Amino acid sequence: MATIKKYVYLFEEGNAKMKSLLGGKGANLAEMTKIGLPVPPGFTITTECCIDYNNLGKEFPEGLEPVILDSVKTLEKKIGKSFGGEDAPLLFSVRSGAPISMPGMMDTILNLGLNDKTVLGHARATNNERFAWDCYRRLIQMFGNVVMGLEHRQFEEILEHHKEKAGVHYDHEMNTATLQGIVEDYKALVKRSTGRDFPQDPRDQLIMAVRAVFDSWNNPRAIVYRKINKIPDSLGTAVNVQTMVFGNTGNDSGTGVIFTRNPNTGAQEFYGEYLPNAQGEDVVAGIRTPKQIAELHTEMPAVYDQLYNVCMLLESHYAEMQDIEFTFERGKLYMLQCRSGKRTAAAAMKIAVDLVAEGKIDKPEALLRVAPDQVEKLLHRGVDPKAKLNVLATGLPASPGAAVGAAVFSADDAERLGQEGQKVVLVRPETTPDDIHGIVEAQGILTSRGGMTCHAAIVARGMGKPCVVGCEALRIDLDRKQFTVGDVTIKEGDLIAVDGATGRVILGSVPLVDPEISPEFKKLLEWADETRTLGVEANADTPEDARKAREFGATGVGLCRTEHMFMAQDRLPVVQQMILAETLDERKAALSKLLPMQQGDFEGILEAMDGFPVTIRLLDPPLHEFLPNQMELTVDVAVLRERIATAGKTGANAGVLQKELDEKEAMLRKVRALAEFNPMLGFRGCRLGLVYPEIYEMQARAIFQATVALKKRGLHPKVEVMIPLVGHTNELTRMKELVKGTAEAVMQETGVTFEWKYGTMIEVPRGALTADELGKDAEFFSFGTNDLTQTTFGFSRDDAEGKFLAHYVEKKILPENPFMSLDQGGVGKLIQMAVNAGRGANPNLKVGICGEHGGDPASIEFCYNAGLNYVSCSPFRVPIARLAAAQARLKKERAK
Amino acid sequence: MATIKKYVYLFEEGNAKMKSLLGGKGANLAEMTKIGLPVPPGFTITTECCIDYNNLGKEFPEGLEPVILDSVKTLEKKIGKSFGGEDAPLLFSVRSGAPISMPGMMDTILNLGLNDKTVLGHARATNNERFAWDCYRRLIQMFGNVVMGLEHRQFEEILEHHKEKAGVHYDHEMNTATLQGIVEDYKALVKRSTGRDFPQDPRDQLIMAVRAVFDSWNNPRAIVYRKINKIPDSLGTAVNVQTMVFGNTGNDSGTGVIFTRNPNTGAQEFYGEYLPNAQGEDVVAGIRTPKQIAELHTEMPAVYDQLYNVCMLLESHYAEMQDIEFTFERGKLYMLQCRSGKRTAAAAMKIAVDLVAEGKIDKPEALLRVAPDQVEKLLHRGVDPKAKLNVLATGLPASPGAAVGAAVFSADDAERLGQEGQKVVLVRPETTPDDIHGIVEAQGILTSRGGMTCHAAIVARGMGKPCVVGCEALRIDLDRKQFTVGDVTIKEGDLIAVDGATGRVILGSVPLVDPEISPEFKKLLEWADETRTLGVEANADTPEDARKAREFGATGVGLCRTEHMFMAQDRLPVVQQMILAETLDERKAALSKLLPMQQGDFEGILEAMDGFPVTIRLLDPPLHEFLPNQMELTVDVAVLRERIATAGKTGANAGVLQKELDEKEAMLRKVRALAEFNPMLGFRGCRLGLVYPEIYEMQARAIFQATVALKKRGLHPKVEVMIPLVGHTNELTRMKELVKGTAEAVMQETGVTFEWKYGTMIEVPRGALTADELGKDAEFFSFGTNDLTQTTFGFSRDDAEGKFLAHYVEKKILPENPFMSLDQGGVGKLIQMAVNAGRGANPNLKVGICGEHGGDPASIEFCYNAGLNYVSCSPFRVPIARLAAAQARLKKERAK
Repeated sequence: MATIKKYVYLFEEGNAKMKSLLGGKGANLAEMTKIGLPVPPGFTITTECCIDYNNLGKEFPEGLEPVILDSVKTLEKKIGKSFGGEDAPLLFSVRSGAPISMPGMMDTILNLGLNDKTVLGHARATNNERFAWDCYRRLIQMFGNVVMGLEHRQFEEILEHHKEKAGVHYDHEMNTATLQGIVEDYKALVKRSTGRDFPQDPRDQLIMAVRAVFDSWNNPRAIVYRKINKIPDSLGTAVNVQTMVFGNTGNDSGTGVIFTRNPNTGAQEFYGEYLPNAQGEDVVAGIRTPKQIAELHTEMPAVYDQLYNVCMLLESHYAEMQDIEFTFERGKLYMLQCRSGKRTAAAAMKIAVDLVAEGKIDKPEALLRVAPDQVEKLLHRGVDPKAKLNVLATGLPASPGAAVGAAVFSADDAERLGQEGQKVVLVRPETTPDDIHGIVEAQGILTSRGGMTCHAAIVARGMGKPCVVGCEALRIDLDRKQFTVGDVTIKEGDLIAVDGATGRVILGSVPLVDPEISPEFKKLLEWADETRTLGVEANADTPEDARKAREFGATGVGLCRTEHMFMAQDRLPVVQQMILAETLDERKAALSKLLPMQQGDFEGILEAMDGFPVTIRLLDPPLHEFLPNQMELTVDVAVLRERIATAGKTGANAGVLQKELDEKEAMLRKVRALAEFNPMLGFRGCRLGLVYPEIYEMQARAIFQATVALKKRGLHPKVEVMIPLVGHTNELTRMKELVKGTAEAVMQETGVTFEWKYGTMIEVPRGALTADELGKDAEFFSFGTNDLTQTTFGFSRDDAEGKFLAHYVEKKILPENPFMSLDQGGVGKLIQMAVNAGRGANPNLKVGICGEHGGDPASIEFCYNAGLNYVSCSPFRVPIARLAAAQARLKKERAK
Repeated sequence: MATIKKYVYLFEEGNAKMKSLLGGKGANLAEMTKIGLPVPPGFTITTECCIDYNNLGKEFPEGLEPVILDSVKTLEKKIGKSFGGEDAPLLFSVRSGAPISMPGMMDTILNLGLNDKTVLGHARATNNERFAWDCYRRLIQMFGNVVMGLEHRQFEEILEHHKEKAGVHYDHEMNTATLQGIVEDYKALVKRSTGRDFPQDPRDQLIMAVRAVFDSWNNPRAIVYRKINKIPDSLGTAVNVQTMVFGNTGNDSGTGVIFTRNPNTGAQEFYGEYLPNAQGEDVVAGIRTPKQIAELHTEMPAVYDQLYNVCMLLESHYAEMQDIEFTFERGKLYMLQCRSGKRTAAAAMKIAVDLVAEGKIDKPEALLRVAPDQVEKLLHRGVDPKAKLNVLATGLPASPGAAVGAAVFSADDAERLGQEGQKVVLVRPETTPDDIHGIVEAQGILTSRGGMTCHAAIVARGMGKPCVVGCEALRIDLDRKQFTVGDVTIKEGDLIAVDGATGRVILGSVPLVDPEISPEFKKLLEWADETRTLGVEANADTPEDARKAREFGATGVGLCRTEHMFMAQDRLPVVQQMILAETLDERKAALSKLLPMQQGDFEGILEAMDGFPVTIRLLDPPLHEFLPNQMELTVDVAVLRERIATAGKTGANAGVLQKELDEKEAMLRKVRALAEFNPMLGFRGCRLGLVYPEIYEMQARAIFQATVALKKRGLHPKVEVMIPLVGHTNELTRMKELVKGTAEAVMQETGVTFEWKYGTMIEVPRGALTADELGKDAEFFSFGTNDLTQTTFGFSRDDAEGKFLAHYVEKKILPENPFMSLDQGGVGKLIQMAVNAGRGANPNLKVGICGEHGGDPASIEFCYNAGLNYVSCSPFRVPIARLAAAQARLKKERAK
């Protein structure tokens, strides 16, 4: 007989290190139990059990049920109460708890163990009949909803009906008789809707609840959450079964949530909220607006002091800011949960830096404590302080950053419009896990209810989305899709702004400004720079971008795209002249007009990045991108012909129309000649330079003349000329002759000598496959991973993202969108091959990456491990890259 | 002091094995000299000398000139005549001679050594003043043209003028005085046009001629020829300097060309032509129509017999059909050149098979003697013998095959129209090497002059283009771009056909038919099948194609594309229903209509290929390919709107127009939703199957139901289901579940079990890079090298070939068009990696190739060496592939 796995751990059997087996919640309950804190006794069913359950096709593994019931008996003995006992019955809470915290799964069932009989014993034991019936009412409601699948709304309707009948407004005003009536109606609802009675056997309740937790691992919300947060499906969730304590037995009871530091700012303050005479769900659901924890100090100083001491102990114990749930029952404190607290990026910075100052962690640990992805949020914009604002109302500042968008009133609308590219702000009374798909697509979130720890606040902070909650001045009418504040009505589609840093809700569009970097952030980035060996450069096409990149800490421009300069409004006509030229002389004439413009661009960028390398990519896009749209021209021509044909009847001036037609037709012929079936794989990159060498020659001349101009001013320009889209060594060799010849000519003409580097972008697989040959001519490689991903997968990004990539990611055909995070198994393999082969040919080869992946932390870690010299990313992401580069090194060293 | 290289070899110093140093012509002259044949003495300046000359920037290597003049002295001693001597002067021919025969370079200068003084000695020595002056006239004309750069036309004008003045029609009717006048005018022309005198010093003539040969290596015609024939630029050409003999001293002299077998049919017959009283150039240029060699037998039996014996000796000596140039001077025979004779594919087959039968070569040698590329020509179509033809005229059948096209009258027009995709037949009085670019683009060639060995005939045979020459009935008017035959006038653009097998010129379009395979071809292919280990399958989408492929020797269908079945006119509406379906049920309803159609297709193909594997690729192209064109719809909609807007004035029926508009707009919305920026990299291949599994399920069901139907009829279907465009192992795994599930369902429903294979096309780099993973699920890989080439290079074939690929090949940025011959350095590297990795995961993995490269001999050789199991190509190319596969194995074994 096979050994039966140990599926159930009493709290005293576990510890904080057992997170993967017991889940985060279970492991921390065990740890708190171990260090002697007041934790209501309980046990944890392991994540392994969940996995086995799912593998068995939703069947309990053999022997599980007896072990659970044995553990219940152990608790009965410990507490001295009986589960299902008719006197002072033992009641349980049942909560899910995955190794990684996961809103979206079934959260909590309270008061489990009550039935038509035990409710009477519970009333006797607590000497509070109303309380007992309220507990029973809550159990049926929660159980009916999360275990038996009824809708929350169905229960609320019964509740509202009874409150109306009883003429009361708040839940706590209901009397025993009302509650008993509600229980009857709830039970009838359950029977009617599911065909089954609400289970009266507490053991049935428990087993059904455990199953519901296991099942919730695979509910759609949980799957979406895991997808967004890149949590493997294979982890499974644990189930925590804990004896109940009651925060709702009267005004000397209550429940709350504490952060040991301010999760928004990181300030060292005791930060939290509580609700007197309430159960935990009341706080989390955000239905009643809770009190600040400071009030507890006034109202129940002993409980407050004990709570404070326990919280500080926990923070020291874990050397990390804690998010703690507690309940006090008739003045006695119980700890229900502790975990590393979610926080804003700013808070994460400050806490990490403060913990180092406090001697609790070292610098490498501090660096690893801040998720680089999250740092991005610090760089989000705020409302321009100088702007004149029409502030409608102020709510709680739940997640920093400011957003402007059209008001929408359902998650579905937010998702639909957001995916169509509209900027929307999702406005709801409160949000639930069912709304995640809308929150993902919204620019910002606004709720009229809830506190700083309500669902909307937690989720928005996690996603770095601006969020204002508990804005009670809003009167939201979901049916009419509008809200009113005073006498102002905001309808669906009206523009509003939310400022998650201050809680302001603003009418209309508002100007936003860039953020400043905090001292803690600066400190952390200094440590990152001391730690990392991977260079961080920036992609910058203008002097302004280059300056910003330098401010953010970039030590070079890894990619300067020259085509954006071609697109400028005053240049486009000249560029078009160049493209439409019928002869080489005509083309050269147009190019000679572009030369001084390009030279000016380069001078500005080189000056902004003086002393650091600037890698300039010669013209890359297909020439038709600079010409009018073929479809529009074709339509214009067809319509003009129609007008000319009917001019006799309509009285239009055929001569004028004919002239217009002739011009449009001439342009259309050119546009057609240049049109391509697959422009991504067309006549672009160095292919242009090889067929029209005069274009690249002009650009090289502009670069080198700019270099000379700066050197004459005493500056230190360091240019690197980059040839795009190289797939064959001959392309690189031919273009080298041209560029080198131009450099030599400029030196001779000006009498000024200068250093420069020649290299290539590797962005088609053949470039990577022949890196040994390219390495002979190139002094540097820069992986253009956007295009390299497109060609390696055979994915056109423009098409894939709209057509099938979402499906691929959703169905986990691909682990993630390869344009967001580098595909290490395919594209990464090519990169590694190319790095090795290129360095084999040229040991001094400088190697970097300049696709969007250069700003993605996981990709940066790959680049470090693959031996790249630098990454180049958007100026905005430079700080993220600096931190990620430091972490990459630390992780590699820790893995040794 | 560095040793001076031996740049000059007397004929008696060389032999046939020294081709790379002495060129083909020089080596064979040496060999003939060695075996005692009557070869006029001479020497060869080496190819190495040519290379050094070009590397030195067109300077003679040190010491070359003295060595040449020393060699001249040696010849003077041997012959007893003096070069530049005023009595019986020694005269030379100077001819180029590359290691690989190359029309397009400078060919021949005759009579070198004549000047104003030696012409008198030459007259005295030959006792023929007219002859001597004719020689001198020819020298100035040839020298002026090929060495001094004057145009042939300029000399012809003077000649015509003098002939008119003298009242004569033919060259040989001119008397001494006329010729002397021509010489004067020629010299004046040279002086006037070049500013230099025609060189009087024979040594100057010789040195200038040698330079001209070296320079001709890099003239545009030679470069084009090398490009077309894939000859490396690095070989260089030798120069042959040979003492003159004269075929134009009277009617007992003459010159001619012999093939030891018929170069068109391979028949064992003495095949050739000669011109009495002429020099070699007269034959080759095709200006006078020569006599059949049989006439020589009658006219000069002794010369004929000697010639016959020498030719047979040479063929035996080389064990190969020879192309021989000879001259007889006053009844004495001289051999001027021998070489392996160019021949048609049919002749190559027959000669190779006959030589084996004659015991002269073995089977492997015979297999290696036939160029697979050339075999294709055997498979060219002919004129349908049952067709009623309007035969305009009959010329010489110079190159087999039949072609239909619009008549054009210049190489430039042929090139332009041909590149635009028009089928043209190039009609010229005669062709010259300057016309190559037009011949390349023409479907067929027709000339009014020239014999079977004229330029047009040789070039057309080499390219496998149908060609009719010497069609003297044609009166061509180049200025008016037309020709007349009797009272029929054919203008530019009129359709004509040429039948190169019979020499017929036919008015209008004619039906063409497929060729039959000769017994020799069959024999050779049998030997190839005994030799090769690489399988040859065919790409076939219809039962007809499959039958043809099987006839041609394919042992399977390596690629059956299912989308062509979708395109059939009666099915497209159903396919569109399927695409436009709003719901899954609608789509399934349409698919269920397609199911029996697809099943029928598969039954037909499986039956045709019964017993052999049939690899069926599931749907690959993007769905928008089955819908109307977006551009046209957009124009229609815009024009309809315009018409509706002006309906009041024009009197159009707005209601009817509005209805049409509504329909078009509805379709346009769908088309727009499916439109893609880069369809090549878009929503196609297995991406369709993953998002719309019901499509692939229908196809799998059709395949398996067809299998069952055939098994029930006692046949032996062997299906292989191929998933296209796989880049990630998950794609292959998911689709395997679907296809396997369908197979099992069909087996269960029908009670018939069957074997089948599952595999993938590898056509994006990521597929090749992750072949180790794909090999776990796949039983076979098939490299789709068309798409793999596109994605590896980042080339869209549709765009590249029209925009920059021609430039790339012309400028040798790429050695050749990678869509024609597999890019071994890049795409081949990926293939080799994938074969190794795939076999690592699955040692029984069957690996093949199904891109167009599967029919390209060089690519087939690569496939064999890379360890592939089979190639799959168009049915037409199956015989070529069989031969190439045998050669690949033989070459590898010989290289050991």
